Amino acid sequence: MFNKRTDLAVEARDMYREDKDKEIPGVEVDVSETKGIKVTRVNIQQEVGARIMNKPVGNYITIEADGIRNRDRDVYEDASRTLGEELQRIAPADRDSTTLVVGLGNWNVTPDSLGPKTVSHLMVTRHVFEYLPDQVDEGVSSVCAISPGVLGITGIETGEIIEGIVSKIKPDRVIAIDALASRKMERINVTIQIADTGISPGSGVGNKRKELNHETLGVPVIAIGVPTVVDAATMASDTIDMVVDTMLKQADEGMEFYQVLQNMKGEDRYNLIREVLDPNVGGLMVTPKEIDDMVNDMSKILANGLNIYLHPSIGPGDVDRFIN
Amino acid sequence: MFNKRTDLAVEARDMYREDKDKEIPGVEVDVSETKGIKVTRVNIQQEVGARIMNKPVGNYITIEADGIRNRDRDVYEDASRTLGEELQRIAPADRDSTTLVVGLGNWNVTPDSLGPKTVSHLMVTRHVFEYLPDQVDEGVSSVCAISPGVLGITGIETGEIIEGIVSKIKPDRVIAIDALASRKMERINVTIQIADTGISPGSGVGNKRKELNHETLGVPVIAIGVPTVVDAATMASDTIDMVVDTMLKQADEGMEFYQVLQNMKGEDRYNLIREVLDPNVGGLMVTPKEIDDMVNDMSKILANGLNIYLHPSIGPGDVDRFIN
Amino acid sequence: MFNKRTDLAVEARDMYREDKDKEIPGVEVDVSETKGIKVTRVNIQQEVGARIMNKPVGNYITIEADGIRNRDRDVYEDASRTLGEELQRIAPADRDSTTLVVGLGNWNVTPDSLGPKTVSHLMVTRHVFEYLPDQVDEGVSSVCAISPGVLGITGIETGEIIEGIVSKIKPDRVIAIDALASRKMERINVTIQIADTGISPGSGVGNKRKELNHETLGVPVIAIGVPTVVDAATMASDTIDMVVDTMLKQADEGMEFYQVLQNMKGEDRYNLIREVLDPNVGGLMVTPKEIDDMVNDMSKILANGLNIYLHPSIGPGDVDRFIN
Amino acid sequence: MFNKRTDLAVEARDMYREDKDKEIPGVEVDVSETKGIKVTRVNIQQEVGARIMNKPVGNYITIEADGIRNRDRDVYEDASRTLGEELQRIAPADRDSTTLVVGLGNWNVTPDSLGPKTVSHLMVTRHVFEYLPDQVDEGVSSVCAISPGVLGITGIETGEIIEGIVSKIKPDRVIAIDALASRKMERINVTIQIADTGISPGSGVGNKRKELNHETLGVPVIAIGVPTVVDAATMASDTIDMVVDTMLKQADEGMEFYQVLQNMKGEDRYNLIREVLDPNVGGLMVTPKEIDDMVNDMSKILANGLNIYLHPSIGPGDVDRFIN
Repeated sequence: MFNKRTDLAVEARDMYREDKDKEIPGVEVDVSETKGIKVTRVNIQQEVGARIMNKPVGNYITIEADGIRNRDRDVYEDASRTLGEELQRIAPADRDSTTLVVGLGNWNVTPDSLGPKTVSHLMVTRHVFEYLPDQVDEGVSSVCAISPGVLGITGIETGEIIEGIVSKIKPDRVIAIDALASRKMERINVTIQIADTGISPGSGVGNKRKELNHETLGVPVIAIGVPTVVDAATMASDTIDMVVDTMLKQADEGMEFYQVLQNMKGEDRYNLIREVLDPNVGGLMVTPKEIDDMVNDMSKILANGLNIYLHPSIGPGDVDRFIN
Repeated sequence: MFNKRTDLAVEARDMYREDKDKEIPGVEVDVSETKGIKVTRVNIQQEVGARIMNKPVGNYITIEADGIRNRDRDVYEDASRTLGEELQRIAPADRDSTTLVVGLGNWNVTPDSLGPKTVSHLMVTRHVFEYLPDQVDEGVSSVCAISPGVLGITGIETGEIIEGIVSKIKPDRVIAIDALASRKMERINVTIQIADTGISPGSGVGNKRKELNHETLGVPVIAIGVPTVVDAATMASDTIDMVVDTMLKQADEGMEFYQVLQNMKGEDRYNLIREVLDPNVGGLMVTPKEIDDMVNDMSKILANGLNIYLHPSIGPGDVDRFIN
Repeated sequence: MFNKRTDLAVEARDMYREDKDKEIPGVEVDVSETKGIKVTRVNIQQEVGARIMNKPVGNYITIEADGIRNRDRDVYEDASRTLGEELQRIAPADRDSTTLVVGLGNWNVTPDSLGPKTVSHLMVTRHVFEYLPDQVDEGVSSVCAISPGVLGITGIETGEIIEGIVSKIKPDRVIAIDALASRKMERINVTIQIADTGISPGSGVGNKRKELNHETLGVPVIAIGVPTVVDAATMASDTIDMVVDTMLKQADEGMEFYQVLQNMKGEDRYNLIREVLDPNVGGLMVTPKEIDDMVNDMSKILANGLNIYLHPSIGPGDVDRFIN
Repeated sequence: MFNKRTDLAVEARDMYREDKDKEIPGVEVDVSETKGIKVTRVNIQQEVGARIMNKPVGNYITIEADGIRNRDRDVYEDASRTLGEELQRIAPADRDSTTLVVGLGNWNVTPDSLGPKTVSHLMVTRHVFEYLPDQVDEGVSSVCAISPGVLGITGIETGEIIEGIVSKIKPDRVIAIDALASRKMERINVTIQIADTGISPGSGVGNKRKELNHETLGVPVIAIGVPTVVDAATMASDTIDMVVDTMLKQADEGMEFYQVLQNMKGEDRYNLIREVLDPNVGGLMVTPKEIDDMVNDMSKILANGLNIYLHPSIGPGDVDRFIN
């Protein structure tokens, strides 16, 4: 029985493989690595795979660039370019079209501010197309962008705001950027997931109740997600695994207890831990202390990748040249 | 011929009266003053008045509270309460309804950030009504709020964003908050205008191209505006008037020049000055150096007044108790 | 052997008492509770107590107001007043003196921004005393304030900045405000600790290398700390305790493992967990998802309490009346 | 008699030359222009020149890059490089030294936020030299930076804060960045002035009362200033000149009045206008409406120029590569 929740397709795949020691049926996986950047392309082709992975049928590309953590400039630039390329691969851009970029999340909470920060760096052009069409540079496509805020700030479901705007301005595609939760600390702020299936309810750092996808918005929705937090209960659960593991390597005691822990279904243990953590406090999140620099860097990588993807005249040599 | 532009009904009235020395036809005016706060209620009843004032038929209430400039606490509280009362007078709130508050303007430009700042202070409740209806306090009405940004940030006309959201969430009324331009420095940040006619194109500190009113949105639109800047050309033009005036009091020279200046139509002189000010630079704005404190104080007054107006259980003694 | 680290005196005391089932020698404790606000006054009188608690001899007052979590307005006001009273008790203010308030922490990281936010709300008056002495209101004392930033932003040790400023402006006292780490999630953002012993190295959410105290600055230093995060390793360690505890209540298995865990010294287990959590990531912090609202509310409580404490004319009825 | 105030040496020179039609005695001027960027190097060599220009003896370099206004990317990069070169020329950097960069001004007021914004983009390294000397990259010099805030925020004179910090950390040089007022709108946000004489009292957008220079700080002080506002009275005064000028070209009337205006000493007329503009409001400033984008771009140019100047391994091809 496999049922741990994760926003990341690569994590869902890893968990299944740890458990079953084989690839998920109905899922095709392709992995490549260049200059320290690993790209995993997971294609969920059949319902059986979708059910196991708890994700809709579609494409999930993960870009992993550990060097971002050390603020390595070359990795920063390569990750920007790789994002541009993979976006082009998953959803070839028709440059006569209009793209709406949506920065999801709460600008007042550092790890949840990734979407709004990316939007603030982005090159926005739709108003020039609309009001000064003769001043439009060749090689630029029509891009608009909004950060709708979160339910607690606006009192309005994010999905309602976006549906309203989409119905009014009728873009050809929506790209939604969101901060995600990861199961593993080591993925925080160094992993980018692109999906052509949109955003699912309950994903992200905050709680979303409405899906943003082709069905709800009427246009293709590409989701770009970056894990910026680890759920606290997940972390505690994983920590227990690691502690027990480490202790077992050191001694024989605790065998029985380990078996008890191992025999508990993952979900049960996770729920036990959630109960044990102060239930009054509600959702907890775990972040590194350097979260502000990390979110800043990553938001610029996303803006660079989007600029390269969306505007034909912005090339791979233009990293940081056209972000605000 | 009367044609100087102003966002404020009281200024349009003052200019007409200076010129013609009588009240504008088709316009009814009522003035009262309590504890240093002057309230002018201008009711444009007929088209003739609307044409002269360059404003739609409707009600325009101006609250002037000079003491705000000196950060007088009593004036701050009284202005909050007066705003609540005058909103109730101009548009009696049905408390079973839903209100959408829109904070217009650019959060990155201090004098244009009044709307977004007010929204950030406001008590927002609609999501509680929607998702936790049993936790709604009695005496609270359903309020949601958004700051849509400006064209240069989003690439989307503000009016399109608001129309889209309104068509989706169907509020019973919209309240739009905007920073205005005044003709007179002395009105900056101490004057609040309420209008039941919505927002006109070209008003405000930035440029709006679309109206937000009953006709475009399908629900009543109340506009709350506060002058936070003076247009530079207006200021220069007014300054010349004042300088010439002052000099004429001191000597007789310049008589002829004064007559030339006086004989020029106001509009002509304004245009001459606009040409003379560097045409490359585009719109200039004049603000006091303490603009940040002023906008902060005023945004809290607006949030307090709105809270008192919208939530029956928030009374005049609750200034600052329920703002974020 | 007792050696778990905590910034909070009440936690150090609780841990000792859980362990030894008696009060710490050389320490006097007084507890009172009014209207849902619990005040614990810990007076470390002798070196033996200081050694056990790992804190200098001095006074530590903890104000616990659980109701803040639910944004209860009465608790908010009462907590503000209680802070003012307890500051007056621990360090009676001579109102002809000058106070420098220091907002420690990183304004770019939400849970670490408490100090800078408090400073931004505070009523600052020293410049009026210096440059416009005849405009000083009676009942106001001289207050100045600075948020020096953190090492990663400035490249300068916070202690150096404050020492430099203190040597220049020679205040009569320094009040340093800092975000702390707590061992228990339930204390986050609802607990205020006042200490007349200053700030110790290594305390707080970030890493401080230099003490701020009477010895280093030459004037009395009052520290006001609020736990806004839980250290991730601490949380995992405590979670294991709780999980094991819970499991033991349900069954007998795991007895041996439990004993192993119990027999490990707390410090050892904590270090094991630190090693187990990704060592590359460095410090992790755990926060509630509503951290932004919590830090906002708490920063206003601190500013209110400080205003009441520092300015004789600001009374307990003036909560929120004089904060920016 | 020459006495109009300006922060910019080029303006003082222009005004003198307009008046007297010759170069200022005791002042040497060198002008060059490459790729649309004009560099004017004014060297005030003797007291006579200093008196006329109302500026201390020393070097004043002005970089004018009109293309910045249109957000021309090449001009942006060239201006960054030119700043780096001119800094190197005016004050050759000894790379084994420590530099303290000071961002003057108020972060809450857009046109005054240039200094703090520049500091936030800067590459700061001193803490690595201090605490992790073996991790210092070759080709990097020791840089620290602070934005001390303004008197109204801290209650402390900026000069006191900087003097305190300098006496503590003993840098080899201070670079102070400040937003200036210009007499001409066309210079706003496209002009950079470097001076090796420090900051004078009363310069800048806000009011500074203390000088920051070699004498007060004990180390060389380089000032980098960018005009971001025009003083409102200056603008009105200049506008009158331009209006009268324009009118005289069109007709003969007003001759006498013009002579009156011309006969008034500039200072007198300026003061008349200051009186005429609402005296209650205090200082007014005039800014373009796009001030936020302009300040953002300029703050990055300054950070790039400083990075190139201070860190030998950052070259002219690295624009935007090492700014935060």
